[in-house]
Amino acid sequence: MSDYKKTDLNKVIRGSKRATYDKVAIAAILKQNFIAHVSYIYENQAISIPMSYGFNTDEIYLHGSLKNRMLTSILKAEKASITVMQLDGLILARSAFHHSVNYHAATLFCSVSEITTRQEKYNALQNIIEQMIPNRWGSLRPISDKELDSTLVLKLKIETASAKVRDVGVVDNKEDLDFPVWAGVIPIKQVAQDPETDTLLAKNIEVPKHVLDYVEKNK
Amino acid sequence: MSDYKKTDLNKVIRGSKRATYDKVAIAAILKQNFIAHVSYIYENQAISIPMSYGFNTDEIYLHGSLKNRMLTSILKAEKASITVMQLDGLILARSAFHHSVNYHAATLFCSVSEITTRQEKYNALQNIIEQMIPNRWGSLRPISDKELDSTLVLKLKIETASAKVRDVGVVDNKEDLDFPVWAGVIPIKQVAQDPETDTLLAKNIEVPKHVLDYVEKNK
Repeated sequence: MSDYKKTDLNKVIRGSKRATYDKVAIAAILKQNFIAHVSYIYENQAISIPMSYGFNTDEIYLHGSLKNRMLTSILKAEKASITVMQLDGLILARSAFHHSVNYHAATLFCSVSEITTRQEKYNALQNIIEQMIPNRWGSLRPISDKELDSTLVLKLKIETASAKVRDVGVVDNKEDLDFPVWAGVIPIKQVAQDPETDTLLAKNIEVPKHVLDYVEKNK
Repeated sequence: MSDYKKTDLNKVIRGSKRATYDKVAIAAILKQNFIAHVSYIYENQAISIPMSYGFNTDEIYLHGSLKNRMLTSILKAEKASITVMQLDGLILARSAFHHSVNYHAATLFCSVSEITTRQEKYNALQNIIEQMIPNRWGSLRPISDKELDSTLVLKLKIETASAKVRDVGVVDNKEDLDFPVWAGVIPIKQVAQDPETDTLLAKNIEVPKHVLDYVEKNK
């Protein structure tokens, strides 16, 4: 693995000391999360829409209705940018100026194409579900051809990317260190809580291992 | 209060039964969060950048470096769209097709102007800090004119907006209800963990009430 190529699009200018172009570091952010903000242009206005995604090597998968405005727009444009951001903490400095957050954020610049064969759509949808919750796909009611045919599935090939990571404590001006206010970090985490069984579920079905594993890993 | 006007930009077409244009409902989402994805166009490409924001009535405040590419771009365009999304749970259905997430998401379409007077910049920056963590501003080392002058502060007036909310359980096809797989919801929450005091802090400064309150409210 190596770095993504720096271009005018992905080069980080502000706060560049926190930037990385490393494919492994960026893949780690993409693996850790499953919601991306997908950006598109509509009526000369940039808009971003949160979507669940799948990720495999250098490809992102998105899905939705055949008429989804954002998906059809990026397909027509043949390119899209997506941003994945994970909030890790509040940085409470002595000065307002040095307040910040800890985070991992990746911005990808991708070429976009439609996945058209049922087998490839099946694989991409499996990837999207498994990105959200590993090991669930195999236990589901198998997806039907009708469902596959009524779903638009896009492949976004990552052409270039960058990430910014802030993962350190408070950084204040030296002359502020004695100012009498508490300073520190409040760590922030996205956690899973106890699963709530569907009220219509048959009584003899227990919470499966993949759900317990997810909750345990994300508690 | 009332609804935001429906236009071609903010009208929700897909999943419109989950849409709202109600100003109170949208304000609740904006108050509850402090990170927005701000979208802009660069080299004919839509990009979104996560930023902390302040919110007051029908205005959003953003700040950054004087040369911040995104901020200078939306200022030049005199308009911007921002999206605030809060993830509330995983919807694990019996079919892949009905997997989903519970969430609150608001998309705002705003006019953009620069805040130029020091007093107004001060007020907007206070709003941004207090949006992140209430009741902290007053205890901070006062912001200097030099800091104010080196910060670009933008006011985004909300011209129209929409939100989508999904907050119900699993919805499967009736014919799938007996399929032998567990179905339910895994609630997801963003939580604060115990504060970590800056190692350079004077020993006699205790964790203040506004920090303890924040952690208690978000645990």
